[in-house]
Amino acid sequence: MAEKKLSSKKRQFSNDAIVRISRYLRNLKRLQQQKVMVISSTDLAKTVNVTPDQLRKDLSYFGGFGKRGVGYDVEYLIQRLENILGVDCEWKIALVGVGRIGGALLNYPGFGQEHLKISVAFDVNPQKIGTTQSNVPVKDLEELPEVVKEQNIKVGILCVQAEYAQDVADMMMDAGIKAILNFAPVNINIREDVYVSRVDMFSKLESLIFFVNQELGEL
Amino acid sequence: MAEKKLSSKKRQFSNDAIVRISRYLRNLKRLQQQKVMVISSTDLAKTVNVTPDQLRKDLSYFGGFGKRGVGYDVEYLIQRLENILGVDCEWKIALVGVGRIGGALLNYPGFGQEHLKISVAFDVNPQKIGTTQSNVPVKDLEELPEVVKEQNIKVGILCVQAEYAQDVADMMMDAGIKAILNFAPVNINIREDVYVSRVDMFSKLESLIFFVNQELGEL
Repeated sequence: MAEKKLSSKKRQFSNDAIVRISRYLRNLKRLQQQKVMVISSTDLAKTVNVTPDQLRKDLSYFGGFGKRGVGYDVEYLIQRLENILGVDCEWKIALVGVGRIGGALLNYPGFGQEHLKISVAFDVNPQKIGTTQSNVPVKDLEELPEVVKEQNIKVGILCVQAEYAQDVADMMMDAGIKAILNFAPVNINIREDVYVSRVDMFSKLESLIFFVNQELGEL
Repeated sequence: MAEKKLSSKKRQFSNDAIVRISRYLRNLKRLQQQKVMVISSTDLAKTVNVTPDQLRKDLSYFGGFGKRGVGYDVEYLIQRLENILGVDCEWKIALVGVGRIGGALLNYPGFGQEHLKISVAFDVNPQKIGTTQSNVPVKDLEELPEVVKEQNIKVGILCVQAEYAQDVADMMMDAGIKAILNFAPVNINIREDVYVSRVDMFSKLESLIFFVNQELGEL
């Protein structure tokens, strides 16, 4: 359910393909932890529930990586995929809205490990401003423009209520943020050079329920 | 990024269309709170960032709802869409894994308001078992089969670590759960008559970063 606005040039890579690349990478890292050195395209494809053909097609966009009959070198493929995704360096992330979901994300152990580091959070609640959560300082939303520019932050996570989402997104884009992961339960309008992806678990749940309900109705 | 396995019969409704229906519904409810009684297709479409044509097409699958030139009756459309989605009655949800994300979902005020009610949670941690979080009892995972059958729960949220995800999903399906919202950072294999949708914020973030990185590289 990505809502990326892609210009024709950017469309050369589909968002779905990139999401799959990200998943291959995550599973390769898990394999590496298990001391796996080489993996066949069939086995790697299985970890993401795609066909080996799909995997080879996804990787072929970026050049070949495996030797036929030999499989992929896990460490080398990790390096290459990290480089392709641009996550071979650390990306600082600004999180806005330290409510229940925002707070949970701050505490999520995944961030930091994955070259994605929430370096600062913002809120308007005076009781939260000035605190530190999981080593991340919570600052006044008013300071966002300055801090984002100072730290050269390009990625933001939006966790505010629906009615504030657009205003806060505008503020983030004004400050130079180019990618927004939107947890607010509302679509936001973005500018030509900005990317947004929405995490909308309610609609996912309701859509699951629709299909289950259809099926139960048929019994 | 839905990973629903749909048989040809079920494909008559696309998951994307259903997700949009869910979003129209949510925005209609917001309009109703603001005492809006009637809305044009243009204005309703705008709230979800789709074209009026798309909106009309989505709704036309289920019959017409508006009068040309008059717009939609907000209350009536809410009732109809709730009925279509099957959320005009309460759906009980079982959440498995009361970790950081699972705990945040338990505390999320959205559940309960939206006819989606987490009625029970499960964990293996003795310190969590027997507690109540946001009025939801946390039970021993071993009790899942019995409780899910007893309460006739059809919908589950999976928030366990990657390495336990498949085993727990199998347990949920064995107990009669037909829809799984998967927050675990791994794909799960589901049975023919079960629906799954994955919430994968890391891959969404990495894919945003890919596109931003591409663009920054071109400057």
